[in-house]
Amino acid sequence: MGTTLTEKILDDHLVEGELETGEEIGIDIDQVLTQDTTGTLVWLQFEALGLDEVQTELAAQYCDHQTYQFDFKNSDDHRFLRSAAGTYGAHFSRPGNGICHQVHKERFAAPGKTMLGSDSHTPTPGGMGELAIGSGGLDVAVAMGGGPYYIEMPEVVNVHLEGELPEWATAKDVILHLLGELSVKGGVGKVLEYTGPGVENLSVPERTTITNMGTELGATTSIFPTDDRTEEFLSRLGREDEHVEIGPDDDAEYDDRIEVDLSEIEPLIATPSMPDNVVPVDEVAGEDVDQVIIGSCTNGAYEDILPGAKMLEGREVNKTTEMIVAPGSKQASELLAREGWTAEMMAAGVNFSEATCGACIGIGHVPASDSVSLRTFNRNFEGRSGIEDDSVYLCSPEVATASALAGEIVDPRDLAEELGDLEDPGFEMADTYDGSDADLIAPDESVDDGLVKGPNISDVPLKDPLDAHLEGSALLKMGDNITTDHIIPATQDILMYRSNIPKLSEFTLSRVDDEFAQRALDADGGFLVAGENYGQGSSREHAALCPMYLGVEGVLAQSFARIHKANLFNFGLLPLEIDADAQENIAEGDDIEIVDDVEEAVRSGQEEFTIRVNDDWETTGLLDASEREREILADGGKLPHTKAQQSGSGAAAPADD
Amino acid sequence: MGTTLTEKILDDHLVEGELETGEEIGIDIDQVLTQDTTGTLVWLQFEALGLDEVQTELAAQYCDHQTYQFDFKNSDDHRFLRSAAGTYGAHFSRPGNGICHQVHKERFAAPGKTMLGSDSHTPTPGGMGELAIGSGGLDVAVAMGGGPYYIEMPEVVNVHLEGELPEWATAKDVILHLLGELSVKGGVGKVLEYTGPGVENLSVPERTTITNMGTELGATTSIFPTDDRTEEFLSRLGREDEHVEIGPDDDAEYDDRIEVDLSEIEPLIATPSMPDNVVPVDEVAGEDVDQVIIGSCTNGAYEDILPGAKMLEGREVNKTTEMIVAPGSKQASELLAREGWTAEMMAAGVNFSEATCGACIGIGHVPASDSVSLRTFNRNFEGRSGIEDDSVYLCSPEVATASALAGEIVDPRDLAEELGDLEDPGFEMADTYDGSDADLIAPDESVDDGLVKGPNISDVPLKDPLDAHLEGSALLKMGDNITTDHIIPATQDILMYRSNIPKLSEFTLSRVDDEFAQRALDADGGFLVAGENYGQGSSREHAALCPMYLGVEGVLAQSFARIHKANLFNFGLLPLEIDADAQENIAEGDDIEIVDDVEEAVRSGQEEFTIRVNDDWETTGLLDASEREREILADGGKLPHTKAQQSGSGAAAPADD
Repeated sequence: MGTTLTEKILDDHLVEGELETGEEIGIDIDQVLTQDTTGTLVWLQFEALGLDEVQTELAAQYCDHQTYQFDFKNSDDHRFLRSAAGTYGAHFSRPGNGICHQVHKERFAAPGKTMLGSDSHTPTPGGMGELAIGSGGLDVAVAMGGGPYYIEMPEVVNVHLEGELPEWATAKDVILHLLGELSVKGGVGKVLEYTGPGVENLSVPERTTITNMGTELGATTSIFPTDDRTEEFLSRLGREDEHVEIGPDDDAEYDDRIEVDLSEIEPLIATPSMPDNVVPVDEVAGEDVDQVIIGSCTNGAYEDILPGAKMLEGREVNKTTEMIVAPGSKQASELLAREGWTAEMMAAGVNFSEATCGACIGIGHVPASDSVSLRTFNRNFEGRSGIEDDSVYLCSPEVATASALAGEIVDPRDLAEELGDLEDPGFEMADTYDGSDADLIAPDESVDDGLVKGPNISDVPLKDPLDAHLEGSALLKMGDNITTDHIIPATQDILMYRSNIPKLSEFTLSRVDDEFAQRALDADGGFLVAGENYGQGSSREHAALCPMYLGVEGVLAQSFARIHKANLFNFGLLPLEIDADAQENIAEGDDIEIVDDVEEAVRSGQEEFTIRVNDDWETTGLLDASEREREILADGGKLPHTKAQQSGSGAAAPADD
Repeated sequence: MGTTLTEKILDDHLVEGELETGEEIGIDIDQVLTQDTTGTLVWLQFEALGLDEVQTELAAQYCDHQTYQFDFKNSDDHRFLRSAAGTYGAHFSRPGNGICHQVHKERFAAPGKTMLGSDSHTPTPGGMGELAIGSGGLDVAVAMGGGPYYIEMPEVVNVHLEGELPEWATAKDVILHLLGELSVKGGVGKVLEYTGPGVENLSVPERTTITNMGTELGATTSIFPTDDRTEEFLSRLGREDEHVEIGPDDDAEYDDRIEVDLSEIEPLIATPSMPDNVVPVDEVAGEDVDQVIIGSCTNGAYEDILPGAKMLEGREVNKTTEMIVAPGSKQASELLAREGWTAEMMAAGVNFSEATCGACIGIGHVPASDSVSLRTFNRNFEGRSGIEDDSVYLCSPEVATASALAGEIVDPRDLAEELGDLEDPGFEMADTYDGSDADLIAPDESVDDGLVKGPNISDVPLKDPLDAHLEGSALLKMGDNITTDHIIPATQDILMYRSNIPKLSEFTLSRVDDEFAQRALDADGGFLVAGENYGQGSSREHAALCPMYLGVEGVLAQSFARIHKANLFNFGLLPLEIDADAQENIAEGDDIEIVDDVEEAVRSGQEEFTIRVNDDWETTGLLDASEREREILADGGKLPHTKAQQSGSGAAAPADD
């Protein structure tokens, strides 16, 4: 029986464990990526490890989330990140140079490599055959220190593609189709490996749109094999020497198989406020649109903006609609500007922005109250746009542009029929991606030596080892699908404190209950209670770090999102799975006691924990954790654990973390 | 004896009074301009007047200060402004279309016309022979209602220009030179009228850089005569039919005369934190520069950005410096993009922004802590950039670009010598300004009918008529040169409440004393005490409206800035001039009593008021106010006054306001 592409790459990088589904494996990491909202903590943690230099083949620090620099704290963060990259040997991408995933794809991503990134859309270069995984920033810091990355061997699911996309259907519609079919939980614990004759009908940038948004399926990562189109794309990037032909064996065995006939894909749209609320565009046609934005790591490439530019040429955006284009990289901006497309878009009424994540996480271009925004982004979680009760739809650049022209949601096929002279712009790449690299500072070009910390950059808090006895109240009771945006909102007014944990923690779970943070601090210990899929969404480790700072000891949930669960271990919070009955019966304020000797039980591998509620009834909490995760948890989190390992072994590097 | 250009235009528009220095005159207004931070109140006030339609020849509403839309309140404001412009018959310029002064210059400003604008840099089109004056928004609302604008006839001062600018010297250096000579108080109560053989050596855009920044001299306005160059510029704008040849008589009599030999101007720079801290660039050369921004209404035109673009071509911004270009208008952006300059700047490492005021008022691109920012803007008041203790320098685009290349402040003449191949890029206009007008919605194109108010847009508060007896404590004691930025900071976190006065008022004078607002509210009445030039800076009426809302009854200062004093009358606050001894001897918390029957005294024309301090000693406060201003003040401000007039006369329009 043959092996999958995922297994081949993992096998090449395996340093611990065996490739059996559900078993923990440790893999060697070739490349790491961090951005400006997660990067400050990554580097503060790397600093705490006491090493001189980044140990991976390549590390890249991007400034993309807050390029508008609303506050000096943002500018201080960027300066600190530049100093850290220069000091420790990472590439530094300046604010305005673009979104990490897009720039990384253009400049560094390579087939067959492993990558770890402190951003949940790190899997983007899977479309180029790189095995790229999003993680908490602490895992990235440890990887930069030369330590392996530990993960449960995921299921490998085959997505078998047939056929060719029809007119006006795009790669975005392919991944929206999968979201509609599988839901935001459909990929949890899985790698989605794309194969089949349909693959060669998709260009590499189209593949990366699909792998990017595999994150919304909850997938560990998504990956395509490489082929002539990969080689050709690398050649256009000026990196043809990095091409490697890789793919699964013909008789590879998968855990599951999903079939998609590309020829049956039509223009789709995710309605508010979850990426899997997918319907055909014409089901919501006629809805007035106040704002349209093209951009993001999903659809912000040169090739994503070009179709919109062609559709806008000689036309004008509707008078009651604002259209913003925020390119994914400055290289995309530069090429579009050089070819005259930027001027055409401006002439049509587009407000052309810096290259930034920006609006996707509620930083700038927040929709007006009671208004509809169409975006080519990957997420439309409620409130993520920066306003509560928003109405954000996700769609392709073609659907977005057609709707901007019409002033209402419209299927571009219908608009084309109505206008008569509007044609499917098709998908076209740049001949050569020859944009300047003036905004990428290589380690050997840096003049920085030593960290520059502004007044809002504080040390990382550390937790004590786990107690033998854990008891406290149910501080907050939540339902299903609580996102990391609920736990720590990513809006500017809040995220500007990302390097100042005491201040940032005041906003913990404020979207669910704005008195939670103070209540938790006052209680000095206690538990969170939640339903299914707790912690879905972004990889931000603040969603574990802030509850930890507030004194939360553990989370009792029906199930956990993968990255967030890893973050809970990494910051010393006990994640116990409870059943639906228990979840229903525990009320906010109930007294929760873990009856076992917790520290001993965690270290010894005990899986079932007895949870006693109000000294009245009992239920069972399951701890699904590897031996390594148990040691980390018991030590109070990964940083105390790594430091303990270092002092125990006398080794400088946390190699056996 | 001949007349000045200023007198000619005023005489053409005079509806009340005589053109004698210091006498109050009423003039008819041809054009009005509002922007997004002042415009919401203007339109709420216009709504309160109960009229159906704007009465001026032209009204234009721009969205320029907060185009990044950090908060839904910003987007709601923009939507409200679009609805108001459409409902009442004003042109609407969409967010991203550019800065009001730049777009107005391109699209509407015309020689011989009068303009009133709710922005302090309204005088910009003086370089085209328009008499343009900045005022509080309420004056704009009344002008839109067809009422005259009242002002004390200013002195008319002749600035006589000789010669021609040498290499690397620019119009920005001319106005910086004047600021260094005259100080930020040098133009108070004056119109600066430029004449002499040097005029023809300056293009119209260069003239508007000078008239724009006349505001920093405190001037009422600045104006140039028109000539062949004006006609040619209008022709390039496609508006040659609007040219009128106007100028002073050869024997015009001026109140004062200043001489400037352009051939002696060299690259200058205003050091932190006042625009008149002017020195030659080489005096501060070598200072490390963290951030460089080209843009603003002073130097954001096509012609201002082009020299920087030429200097950057084939070069790279220093690795430790961030360079941002924020064009003054989308037309400038579009032309630069069409000609390839945008791509060149991006290739050099420039972060190319939307067309916005943005950073100039601390909205975006806030400098890092303890860092130096060089900007081509017009103001560097402390904290205005969005961070306290900032170090903002003001200079020409050439000095800014040279410093971005060097990573430190450098005189471009020295850099040219060092590099060998760097030439003065000179000053070049576009052949034709043929950018799209897709973002300008003319009244007859609008589909809006009826105001759309978001939840943060509240009614304007009204004050009761003046009491006979005024007594209260000295709520706050301040020194000289308190700016409107001190009174109400213009940073995003604060200004987003501009249409919500109760909330906005919490930030009143917080830069001076962050407990002031609560103290004033608790005191329920009282006075502000200040030194010279109280209220300099922007025209924002919130600087009077918020103290009014907090219960402040009057301001005792050694002198007042002109626009702010008008705003104090307009919102019913008593401005009394006191002498230096009194200012020194009144302590914070002292009890202040105006001994006279205040209402009667104000209405009857009494100039000297007896101020009794702590029931212990007395001093005199001077009320320098016209009969009309006295009536407004006694009625509780202009809005109650206008409404009282309307109900008294039964007239719909406040024609005799």
